[in-house]
Amino acid sequence: MNYAMIRYVLSWVARVEAALLVLPLVIAAIYGEWQVMPVYAGVIIFCLAIGFLTAKKPKNTEIYAKDGFAAVALLWIVLSVFGALPFVFTGEIPFFVDALFEIVSGFTTTGSSILNNVEALSHASLFWRSFSHWNGGMGVLVFILMFIPVKTGSQMNLMRAESPGPDVSKFVPRVRGTAKILYRIYLAMTLAEIVLLLVTGMPWFDAVCISFGTAGTGGFAVLNSGLSSYSAIQQWIVTFAMIAFGVNFSFYFLLLHRKRKAAFRMQEVQFYFLIIIGAVAFITAQLLWQSGFHGGLGQFEQTLRAAAFQVGSIITTTGFSTVDFNVWPSASKWVLVLLMFIGACAGSTGGGIKVSRVVILAKSIKKELIVLAHPRTVRKVMFDGQVVPHEVLRSINVFMASYLIIFGASVFLISLDGFSLETNFTAVAATLNNIGPGLDAVGPTANFSAYSPLSKIILIFDMLAGRLEIFPMLMLFMPATWRRNG
Amino acid sequence: MNYAMIRYVLSWVARVEAALLVLPLVIAAIYGEWQVMPVYAGVIIFCLAIGFLTAKKPKNTEIYAKDGFAAVALLWIVLSVFGALPFVFTGEIPFFVDALFEIVSGFTTTGSSILNNVEALSHASLFWRSFSHWNGGMGVLVFILMFIPVKTGSQMNLMRAESPGPDVSKFVPRVRGTAKILYRIYLAMTLAEIVLLLVTGMPWFDAVCISFGTAGTGGFAVLNSGLSSYSAIQQWIVTFAMIAFGVNFSFYFLLLHRKRKAAFRMQEVQFYFLIIIGAVAFITAQLLWQSGFHGGLGQFEQTLRAAAFQVGSIITTTGFSTVDFNVWPSASKWVLVLLMFIGACAGSTGGGIKVSRVVILAKSIKKELIVLAHPRTVRKVMFDGQVVPHEVLRSINVFMASYLIIFGASVFLISLDGFSLETNFTAVAATLNNIGPGLDAVGPTANFSAYSPLSKIILIFDMLAGRLEIFPMLMLFMPATWRRNG
Repeated sequence: MNYAMIRYVLSWVARVEAALLVLPLVIAAIYGEWQVMPVYAGVIIFCLAIGFLTAKKPKNTEIYAKDGFAAVALLWIVLSVFGALPFVFTGEIPFFVDALFEIVSGFTTTGSSILNNVEALSHASLFWRSFSHWNGGMGVLVFILMFIPVKTGSQMNLMRAESPGPDVSKFVPRVRGTAKILYRIYLAMTLAEIVLLLVTGMPWFDAVCISFGTAGTGGFAVLNSGLSSYSAIQQWIVTFAMIAFGVNFSFYFLLLHRKRKAAFRMQEVQFYFLIIIGAVAFITAQLLWQSGFHGGLGQFEQTLRAAAFQVGSIITTTGFSTVDFNVWPSASKWVLVLLMFIGACAGSTGGGIKVSRVVILAKSIKKELIVLAHPRTVRKVMFDGQVVPHEVLRSINVFMASYLIIFGASVFLISLDGFSLETNFTAVAATLNNIGPGLDAVGPTANFSAYSPLSKIILIFDMLAGRLEIFPMLMLFMPATWRRNG
Repeated sequence: MNYAMIRYVLSWVARVEAALLVLPLVIAAIYGEWQVMPVYAGVIIFCLAIGFLTAKKPKNTEIYAKDGFAAVALLWIVLSVFGALPFVFTGEIPFFVDALFEIVSGFTTTGSSILNNVEALSHASLFWRSFSHWNGGMGVLVFILMFIPVKTGSQMNLMRAESPGPDVSKFVPRVRGTAKILYRIYLAMTLAEIVLLLVTGMPWFDAVCISFGTAGTGGFAVLNSGLSSYSAIQQWIVTFAMIAFGVNFSFYFLLLHRKRKAAFRMQEVQFYFLIIIGAVAFITAQLLWQSGFHGGLGQFEQTLRAAAFQVGSIITTTGFSTVDFNVWPSASKWVLVLLMFIGACAGSTGGGIKVSRVVILAKSIKKELIVLAHPRTVRKVMFDGQVVPHEVLRSINVFMASYLIIFGASVFLISLDGFSLETNFTAVAATLNNIGPGLDAVGPTANFSAYSPLSKIILIFDMLAGRLEIFPMLMLFMPATWRRNG
C-alpha cells in the first residue's frame, strides 16, 4: 500500500468534510441554536487542521489496483468517524458507537437509526443527518476525485472500487466528464423534489431534508412519525421521487442525449418497473381483501398509496415509512423482504443486490437448463442485447457468495444479544441492503438502540459493506493489503 | 422425450414398489393388524397390475440427455403417488395431499410430518414411513437401474440426474460396480446401528425404524416424543450414526480400499467435522451459560448430548429431535438455521446445499479477492488438491441462484396462509433442505398439518427439488422437455 498517498487522499477527505459541515453550521445560525454552533465550528476547525497538517503531497501519487478497494473502505471509515463528532460533542448522541452508527447509516444511505426521539435533535444535527444521505448517495470519493490531483489510472482504481455494480455496458461514472453530467442530473432532480414539496405547502426545512433523504435513497426523516403526517399529495410526490432515484442513471443520461429508444430498451429499468407494479398490485389487493373492500375510492386511494409508498421505499432501499408495515399480513411482509434483497437498479443511489444482478442470475439459470437438456448447445447469457462477459458473471456469483456468508455470520453475531430471529434477520437485511427499518423489534416504528455496542459495530460493517458492494470491506482483512510498497 | 421408454421405466418403478410394500405387509401380519393387511395387499396387486400392463419394452431403449432430468423427477413423483395409497386406504391419512406430503417426506428423507399423533398409526404404516427413508436415501432410481435393461449411456443420463452434487473427483456412483459397493456399506452401517440399539435394550421395531430414519437421514420417529424418551446411550448411538451417514461415502469407499491417507485428506470431510465440533461447542457453552453451570458432570453430559444430537440431526438433515430447540437462545437457534442450509457432505444421504459447495464458494471468494488485488495474477480454485473445473463452479453458482429463487418464491406462496415469517421461512428451509422440523409453528414439537393444501403442494415440490438437487424438478417446466422424439 502506498501509505503516503492514502494519507494524502485522507487529508482531502478531512478538508471536504470541513466544507460540508459549513452547511449545518449555517442552519444552526438560522435557527439560533447557539449551543450547537461552537461544536460544529470546532469540528470544522479540527477537520481543517487534520486536513492541512497531513496534506504533504507525496512524490509517488499512484494508487495501485490492489490498494484501490481497501483505500476506498478506509476513506469511508475516516469520513464517518469525523462525521460522528458533532453528534458526540453536542451531547445529542453522547456514546461514540451510537453516533458512528447514525452517521454511517447516513453516509451509506441506509437510514437505520438508534434515536428514540429524532425531534429532540437540533436543526443543525437533523440537517447534517439528512445531508449525509445526499452526499453518500453521490459517492463521496468520486466527488473528491474531481478536486484531487491523482494519476488518471489511479483514479480509475478508486472509482471502480466505489461504484462497481455489474455494468455490462461499462458506461457509468468512469470518467470525470460523465460524472459531472450525472451529478447535474442528481442535483436537478433533488431541486425538483424540493420545489414540488414546497409548492404543496411542506415547511422548507422538512422539504430539503426529505428530498436529501429521497435523493440518496437514505431514509432519515425529521419527525418521529416518519412521513405519515404529511399530506397525501406530498406522500405521492415522495413515492414517485424515490422510484425515480432508484432508476439506473444511465437511463436519464440516455434521455438527455435524446436516445429515447435505447433508454426505454434498458432491461434493468423494464424489470425494475415490472417488479414495482407487481408488488404494489399484490399488496394493495391483499390489504383490501384483509380489511374488506367497501368500494370507496377513498379507501382504495389510501391503500394504494400505502402500498406504493412502502414498495417504492423498500425496493429503492430508501426506508421512509408512512404506515407500520410490521402489522401487514405475512405474504405482504415477505414481498417487502424480497424487495429488500432485490434492491434498486445498479447505477442508482439505491442499495441491495440490484435488479440487474437478479435478472442476470435468473437468465443464467434458464441458460443452464437449456445446456443441461442439450449438452452440445453453445449458449450465452444476454443482457441489453449484449453477451454478458464471463468475468461479469463470475463477479456476480462471487458477490452473491460473499453476500450470503456475511449475511449469515452477521445474523449469528448480533443474535448473541438475544432478540428474535425475525428481528436479527431483518436487522441485517436492512443494514446490508442500506434500507433502514426491518421488521419486529427493528420495524418502522422502532429503532436499533437496543442492540449492544458489538452488534452495532457489526451492523456498521454491514452498512459499509452494502454501500461499497462488499469487496472493499473484505479487502481490509487481507494481509496483502497492508504490505508496504512503492 | 422418448415416452415409450419413460413408460417402460415407470412400469419398473411400480413393480419395485410392489416388492418394497411386501415388508410392511409382513409387519402387519406379525402384529396381527388384520384391518390394514388387505389394504397393503391390495396396493401391491394394484402396483403389480400397473407394472405388468405397461411393461412392453420399447424398441428404442435410449433415454436422451435432455430427458434424463425430467424422467427422474417423473419417476419420483410416480413412486410417491403409489406410495401414498396405503395411508389413504387404511384411513390413517384420509386426505390424499396429506398422504402424499407424508410419503414424499419419507422418500426424500425429509421427515416433516402432517401427523399430530404418530402413535395412532398401525405398525405397518409406521414401518412403511421409515422404510421409505431408507429407500429414498439410497436413491431409488439407481437401485432400479440395477435390474432394468437400458443402454449404458442412458443409464448415465439418469444416474447423473438423481445423484448430482459437485463432485470434483467424478468418482461417486457412476457405474454399477461402485454403486453395489456403496450399497453394501450402506446396508452394513444400517445393520450395525440396529444391532447397537438392540444391545442397549431398544425394542426391535423401534431399533429398525430409527435406524432406517438415521441411514436415510430422514427423521420419522415412531413415538410422539421423538427420540427424547430413549436412554442417554441410545441417543449417543443415534448421534454418532447420524454424523456417520452424513459423511461423503467416498470416504468409506477409500477406507475399504485401504487408502486411509486419501480418505482423511478429503477436504469436505475435514470441514464437515470442523463445523460439527464448532457448532456443538458453541451451543453447549451457550446453553450452560444460560442455565448457569453448576459444575456437575451430569448437567454437562446432558447439555453436550442435547447439543451434539441436535447439531448432528440438523447438519445431516435427519431431523430427529430429543429436545425442543425452539426454546433455545437465538444465537444457538441461528446456528441450527445455518446448519440447515450448509447440510451434509455431497455423496452422502443428507440434503442441504452440501459442505463441498459451501467450501468451494468460500474458496472462490478468496480467489476473487486475490485477483482483484493483483489483476494480472492467474489463480484457480483448488479442492482436494485438484483444480475445480470451470463447469463445476458454474453449476454450483447456478444451483445457488435457483436455490435462492425457489426459496424466496416458496416462502411467498406459503405465507398466503398467514403464519409468521419465522414459521414460513424455516418451513421452506426444512423441506428444501430435506430436514424435517423447522422453528416456531413448525418446530420440533409441532407439525405441518395446519398449512393449506396449496402450501403442502408447494412444500412437496420443495422436498423433491431438495432431494434431486433442483434441476430435475425445474426441467419439468421446460416446454422442450415434453416434445416428442425418437
